[in-house]
Amino acid sequence: MKLWDIYATMKQDVSYIEEQLERSIASDLRTLNDASLQLLKAGGKRIRPVFVLLAGKFGTYDLERLKYVAVPLELIHMASLVHDDVIDDADTRRGQLTVKAKWDNRVAMYTGDYIYGQALVLATELQDPQIHRILSKAMVQMCIGEMEQIRDFFNTSQSERQYLLRIRRKTALLIAISCQLGAIASGASAAIGRQLYRFGYNVGMAFQIRDDVLDLIGTEAQLGKPPGNDIRQGNLTLPVIYALEETGRRQALLREIERIRRMNGHTDVSSILHNIRESAGIRRAEQLAERYINKAIHALEQLPDIRARKNLRDIAYFIANRSH
Amino acid sequence: MKLWDIYATMKQDVSYIEEQLERSIASDLRTLNDASLQLLKAGGKRIRPVFVLLAGKFGTYDLERLKYVAVPLELIHMASLVHDDVIDDADTRRGQLTVKAKWDNRVAMYTGDYIYGQALVLATELQDPQIHRILSKAMVQMCIGEMEQIRDFFNTSQSERQYLLRIRRKTALLIAISCQLGAIASGASAAIGRQLYRFGYNVGMAFQIRDDVLDLIGTEAQLGKPPGNDIRQGNLTLPVIYALEETGRRQALLREIERIRRMNGHTDVSSILHNIRESAGIRRAEQLAERYINKAIHALEQLPDIRARKNLRDIAYFIANRSH
Repeated sequence: MKLWDIYATMKQDVSYIEEQLERSIASDLRTLNDASLQLLKAGGKRIRPVFVLLAGKFGTYDLERLKYVAVPLELIHMASLVHDDVIDDADTRRGQLTVKAKWDNRVAMYTGDYIYGQALVLATELQDPQIHRILSKAMVQMCIGEMEQIRDFFNTSQSERQYLLRIRRKTALLIAISCQLGAIASGASAAIGRQLYRFGYNVGMAFQIRDDVLDLIGTEAQLGKPPGNDIRQGNLTLPVIYALEETGRRQALLREIERIRRMNGHTDVSSILHNIRESAGIRRAEQLAERYINKAIHALEQLPDIRARKNLRDIAYFIANRSH
Repeated sequence: MKLWDIYATMKQDVSYIEEQLERSIASDLRTLNDASLQLLKAGGKRIRPVFVLLAGKFGTYDLERLKYVAVPLELIHMASLVHDDVIDDADTRRGQLTVKAKWDNRVAMYTGDYIYGQALVLATELQDPQIHRILSKAMVQMCIGEMEQIRDFFNTSQSERQYLLRIRRKTALLIAISCQLGAIASGASAAIGRQLYRFGYNVGMAFQIRDDVLDLIGTEAQLGKPPGNDIRQGNLTLPVIYALEETGRRQALLREIERIRRMNGHTDVSSILHNIRESAGIRRAEQLAERYINKAIHALEQLPDIRARKNLRDIAYFIANRSH
């Protein structure tokens, strides 16, 4: 079964979440409404709501309850993207103009704040303090992850561990709690919630590593933007950290990274991309992503054998192999 | 009794809240820790925690519970200030370097996000969904208020009503819920909570009007910054809206405002300040602030006659007459 088919079987429920997303950000304030809608329409795979819904199948599946975690989780993700745009000075995301480019930094910042706030308001509908706690803690961890990323920009002596801690906060945690909150909102047992969290965490780690690899080896057609975006920003991802460990390559890489830093990223990065692609860094990162996928699958195996479990497994494999 | 004396009687509890504020933002991440601490040390009157504590006297006063709303409310206020700095391109606040000036926009934005998140995490300690709901709704309304302010920059045809709606969201609401949440967290009756909300709302409106008047008539020594900051930004406050209604003054004001807009605020504003000070705008705005204070006092009169009621009244009068 392909990812597309999984979405197809959930089509109605995913569409309903999409509608609710649109409703949740509607505002009388024109700019806020337009900026939020622009962000929403830019799309995305809605992977977090899909995880919520599938996790909800392990308890008493109730879309009317699940929407109060599915929508907030996607909103928190969206809000983090719009705040990301502010700092990255990115002009497009997935080929669409970003809020920041179409309006300005202030609009992007407040749109993000607004969306964060709406996310938390919606989640309060479930009257379950544990859910607010998990969501607001995730928001804090995501900010710390973003700040760690800023701290580590152009830091050529960072370790693999530092990178993993950072992407854990920046990405994996939100996917982990998407699975966990789906379980909680559907009244599944705590043990099921824990396994789903483990699944989501490991898938999230693999997802981000894969994303970072793609930014180094993908084509502009695949990515919707030129490759090397991360390195231009100073964001040294796992393959780069690994490549820096190769003594025959280290000096050339350090020189290139220093050059990019001095040029504030406004420079051609094809030669460093070439160098990294030739290193063992890509393969090693992909192997680590695979290990995370295997751990995710292992967590799934502890769960009841229902169709949702098969779907989650397929999504995990899809993420492991995706090229866009 | 002066404001100083009210604080003196609450000294121990306010100090405890101050300690808790410091603990709540501590982070292993150096920049995040330093930026948050910088913001905290810049001070402020901690008026929101004081309102929480005084409101808590109308129920079963329990500092260990009240801190879980007092600290979040001050944090939300602080987070909104740091986000304000991003957009205002302000370099100092209360004479201290702003986070934005000492670090950069990205740090300021994530510091704000982090503080918002920590505020909500802390509030979840009370396990009361109603409290999260009120807090997260306030966060949304504050963002809308900020966006309305951006929308209305240099809009010379805005009405008094538009201004009032904006400051309601931007300022009054957070003060209103400070009083309300103090009541809720101390288990006071819903009727007491409503009166305290009304009190806080009206004090908040008066507070912001007074703040806006001071920015037009205050001296640099009183304000800690040159007057006319709002108008330089395009933020047309109540006295300006009133002054624009005076036919003999309107054309000159429109020309001045247009000039400031074209110069992006980098211009001398003494002539327009002079013009506004000569209009009836200042007096009319002060009269409206007084009406709000009277409504606040009226709300208080519906409450039990305890010492906290007298303290709240004194604070309201202090706000009505403050010159800094």
